[in-house]
Amino acid sequence: MKELMKEIRQFTEDRDWDQFHNGKDLALALSIEASELNEAFLWKDAKDVKIEKVKEELADVFNYAFLIADKYDLDVREIVMAKLAKNAEKYPVDKARGKSDKYTDL
Amino acid sequence: MKELMKEIRQFTEDRDWDQFHNGKDLALALSIEASELNEAFLWKDAKDVKIEKVKEELADVFNYAFLIADKYDLDVREIVMAKLAKNAEKYPVDKARGKSDKYTDL
Amino acid sequence: MKELMKEIRQFTEDRDWDQFHNGKDLALALSIEASELNEAFLWKDAKDVKIEKVKEELADVFNYAFLIADKYDLDVREIVMAKLAKNAEKYPVDKARGKSDKYTDL
Amino acid sequence: MKELMKEIRQFTEDRDWDQFHNGKDLALALSIEASELNEAFLWKDAKDVKIEKVKEELADVFNYAFLIADKYDLDVREIVMAKLAKNAEKYPVDKARGKSDKYTDL
Repeated sequence: MKELMKEIRQFTEDRDWDQFHNGKDLALALSIEASELNEAFLWKDAKDVKIEKVKEELADVFNYAFLIADKYDLDVREIVMAKLAKNAEKYPVDKARGKSDKYTDL
Repeated sequence: MKELMKEIRQFTEDRDWDQFHNGKDLALALSIEASELNEAFLWKDAKDVKIEKVKEELADVFNYAFLIADKYDLDVREIVMAKLAKNAEKYPVDKARGKSDKYTDL
Repeated sequence: MKELMKEIRQFTEDRDWDQFHNGKDLALALSIEASELNEAFLWKDAKDVKIEKVKEELADVFNYAFLIADKYDLDVREIVMAKLAKNAEKYPVDKARGKSDKYTDL
Repeated sequence: MKELMKEIRQFTEDRDWDQFHNGKDLALALSIEASELNEAFLWKDAKDVKIEKVKEELADVFNYAFLIADKYDLDVREIVMAKLAKNAEKYPVDKARGKSDKYTDL
């Protein structure tokens, strides 16, 4: 994962785009890419989704998510594991099992 | 990264949440978490942003992004590298350098 | 406003698009259009924003927002006034005046 | 509609919130509210949606959409009618009838 982040950072540095990459605009860009990913599913059943579109837009989402992690010096593995631990407390297996209604606050 | 994805998948399986995790709702959930991350920046200058909020919401974004990758059997490294290669063609260093206007179509 | 909603509904009916317009996809479409509006501001200062883009994307946002109101038989004026009344309680003038921090939960 | 916009503007002025209401943050707030509306549909079938949640979040969406229109001195009826006219050219009745695939680019 660290190597992948290095590649992404290099791409940005090569183009001198750091100057645009403040946290607020990176988060905004991430949100826009997440919306483009959602477009792959709009007005459609799951079976009609084009996997190529999913691949491309999900790649864009990861790209910005990693740039934000890099910007704030966050260890992706660490923050995700910490959140899983927090969610494990909020949604204990015996209570949350098979229930989507609790899940909506995740 | 594969280990992290395994942890995330395990969390879901333990709660029997696979049944809710169709691609469309996962993409929607990702988008909602991206919005919550944006809330950390709303009405604020970058300097007033609370890093704890960024950590938590970015972790949620990664969580769903990995679940989508898992759902469609995508190799995160592979799709991100493929997109970087595509973007490198679209934004060659000599033309894109220091320009945000080209970047908006990324 | 009612006449405008009638025009929007007519446009949809003429194309027999009601069949795609379930609440979930309409809300998703609204969210996607809101993201396209945000694209007008991405990597930019307010002064560099192109008003034509704002006009078009904001029109799309209103289009879907009215379609959702129509779908659920909601009176736009009524729900907005009800929410303003609720917000007036949550953010009393004397306490909320000039403070953005309270505002973020709006 | 103009009266409703006046009420919304008054609410903002009473709290001296104009200072936070730049176009970029207003668009961001709109997008966040659109996501909260989407939360009403997340992991759910249309029939399980709670109408009270839809009302409240749609009201928030309209609130910010009107504030943006106000900010840029846009006539909502005018921009929506102009977009409908443009879409009518892009999706002529005889070609777009009953097809969701053309619709996805709307």
